[in-house]
Amino acid sequence: MEKPADHLHQMRATAPLVHCITNYVAMNIMANVLLAAGASPAMVHAREEVAEFAGLAQALSVNIGTLDPAWAAAMEAAARVMATHQRPWVLDPVGVGATAFRQTVCARLLALGPTVIRGNASEILALAGIGAKGRGADSADPVEAAEAAARDLAQRTGAVVAVSGPVDYVTDGATAYRISNGHALMPRVTALGCSLNGVIAAFLVGQPALPATVAAMAYYGLAGEIAAQSTTGQGTTGPGAFQPAFLDALHSLSPAELAQGARITRA
Amino acid sequence: MEKPADHLHQMRATAPLVHCITNYVAMNIMANVLLAAGASPAMVHAREEVAEFAGLAQALSVNIGTLDPAWAAAMEAAARVMATHQRPWVLDPVGVGATAFRQTVCARLLALGPTVIRGNASEILALAGIGAKGRGADSADPVEAAEAAARDLAQRTGAVVAVSGPVDYVTDGATAYRISNGHALMPRVTALGCSLNGVIAAFLVGQPALPATVAAMAYYGLAGEIAAQSTTGQGTTGPGAFQPAFLDALHSLSPAELAQGARITRA
Amino acid sequence: MEKPADHLHQMRATAPLVHCITNYVAMNIMANVLLAAGASPAMVHAREEVAEFAGLAQALSVNIGTLDPAWAAAMEAAARVMATHQRPWVLDPVGVGATAFRQTVCARLLALGPTVIRGNASEILALAGIGAKGRGADSADPVEAAEAAARDLAQRTGAVVAVSGPVDYVTDGATAYRISNGHALMPRVTALGCSLNGVIAAFLVGQPALPATVAAMAYYGLAGEIAAQSTTGQGTTGPGAFQPAFLDALHSLSPAELAQGARITRA
Repeated sequence: MEKPADHLHQMRATAPLVHCITNYVAMNIMANVLLAAGASPAMVHAREEVAEFAGLAQALSVNIGTLDPAWAAAMEAAARVMATHQRPWVLDPVGVGATAFRQTVCARLLALGPTVIRGNASEILALAGIGAKGRGADSADPVEAAEAAARDLAQRTGAVVAVSGPVDYVTDGATAYRISNGHALMPRVTALGCSLNGVIAAFLVGQPALPATVAAMAYYGLAGEIAAQSTTGQGTTGPGAFQPAFLDALHSLSPAELAQGARITRA
Repeated sequence: MEKPADHLHQMRATAPLVHCITNYVAMNIMANVLLAAGASPAMVHAREEVAEFAGLAQALSVNIGTLDPAWAAAMEAAARVMATHQRPWVLDPVGVGATAFRQTVCARLLALGPTVIRGNASEILALAGIGAKGRGADSADPVEAAEAAARDLAQRTGAVVAVSGPVDYVTDGATAYRISNGHALMPRVTALGCSLNGVIAAFLVGQPALPATVAAMAYYGLAGEIAAQSTTGQGTTGPGAFQPAFLDALHSLSPAELAQGARITRA
Repeated sequence: MEKPADHLHQMRATAPLVHCITNYVAMNIMANVLLAAGASPAMVHAREEVAEFAGLAQALSVNIGTLDPAWAAAMEAAARVMATHQRPWVLDPVGVGATAFRQTVCARLLALGPTVIRGNASEILALAGIGAKGRGADSADPVEAAEAAARDLAQRTGAVVAVSGPVDYVTDGATAYRISNGHALMPRVTALGCSLNGVIAAFLVGQPALPATVAAMAYYGLAGEIAAQSTTGQGTTGPGAFQPAFLDALHSLSPAELAQGARITRA
């Protein structure tokens, strides 16, 4: 495993332009997360320009949160540009188990070869074709229950597959890692999971997919820990004060701190 | 009047999945408000999946803030599912007096039998068919001016009707309550009114509409008071610091504190 | 140059209803910025009501951030109403250099006579027809490089043209000002530039375009300085804590403080 600190340093040195096609709930916080981390976000989706803009971007993040057919078509068009230019893109299959429409759209997106797929356990189970209990954006399944599905999905698609949870699981189908950074308040702030996918996309630019994804997730989880510590120090322990503190932690967290605080183990 | 504390306890124990079809301005803060309160929000609107998803949800919140015909159709489809399954749904007639389009859409939504209608005085007057002065999302009329219209609207539609203002008024057409919790900064943060409707929807799951609505509004207003106290204690008195403090108050406010702090009187 | 303090006082006394047709990333923060400043925002875009609603508004802010053809048509319809009633409107040509679609839409909007055009240097260069290097919402060109283009654009369109940057440049084609208020964290919070255009629109109501624009930009930049001071005083220096502090500074900044803190020079 390369050093996650090097991946953070490299991402900030690149300051990549990340094209985000994401849901309405996530757009603002995702842009702020990417700016705080040191990347440059841009949200573009219209049929008239989405492929042209994707051609300018260094990475793409696709999220099916508030899907409709026009947005699904935009996602496909942008992903096709990334595939053509061999640039990285990340798929977030939000709530894929909830409706037939989401399953259809995800099947089409999977065929375009995402570099990384990240979701919660229920989403990864549903995407792997295994009936899962998820409702909306919340997971009803533990991470462990999705590890075999993640490996299978990775082998079938060639993507790195990441399962988010109290301890994350990331695999390329052969090698796997567990990341135990993070904080319980993170799922109480909406769209922090969605926003993580943008950060993963930023880390992928010019870096190998498996260690870059692991580094991005350790960085993100450690920022959550730092944010929780800083707000607790101010006497607050809720999701409201946590959000700005989290952005500040993403902004200030140094490669040296990541080297020290990352908790990554080979699975 | 049942005890509002019991309603808060019950809502958190249920942690209901609330389907939100709301405006672009409100989506993020509404999701964060629901998560902080202890419910589980999901935003889904596409024709291809909105009815299927509504079938999974325990309550629905509809808000016409940034309306267009496709979203109006999604609102009708989801409300129809709720009506069929006798599940609760809440209507927020944002700016209904401003344009003919809003009036047409609201008439169609009213025909689908919302469980609760909540708006400001101008919106309730406009919805009741009485020319009102509202412009955009702000009320130009005092709460008292809309009390008769609220009773009339409740009797005609079978809905509980709530008028938001410095002192709220809530009625089912026969019985009415006034709630004097709240803080002057709340209308200076965008979409806190919209977000309240999601909280009311969460309280309605498995609970009778009139006392559940009153409890939700007292809880929400009291959280505003606590937030204002905590930010004033930190030397700030603006809407910026107020927003995260408000989320934290929604998160931490206990049923016992609500029992003590709720200011509800029979009207 | 009139006194910026008078313009701030006048804007707050008017509390204008500002119709915003803006991108999904900006909507929430733009509404909060306008509320904090003392104006009344409303977001309306559907073909069925956009012109009717524009007829109620005192000013309009148009932003092409997450453009699509339906939204572009809404922008044109609302701008036409403003032109007919001789009410002010502001154009934010986000990322206009990035795609042909944006250039086509901006050409149509320019023909409707915006009162003010504000963008970063790359956007103003691109809009003036000079190839610029901008990618997404970030500027790759310094303000000075766009000054001649700004003057040319102002003379050709009759608009006041404002170039945002570390030192802003504002001109009506004949007279020009530089404003050196602001803080380096402002571009690290998404959509603060977009939101400034709403504030400019609010200042334009009943006030002459050049000094009102200069006053709005000095007010906005000074609020950024105050926010940075207050968060630094609390030991944080990131974009997370900065955002709520910025809203509070917009809210509390008095005309007297603006008179003292504005740094405006004749160019």
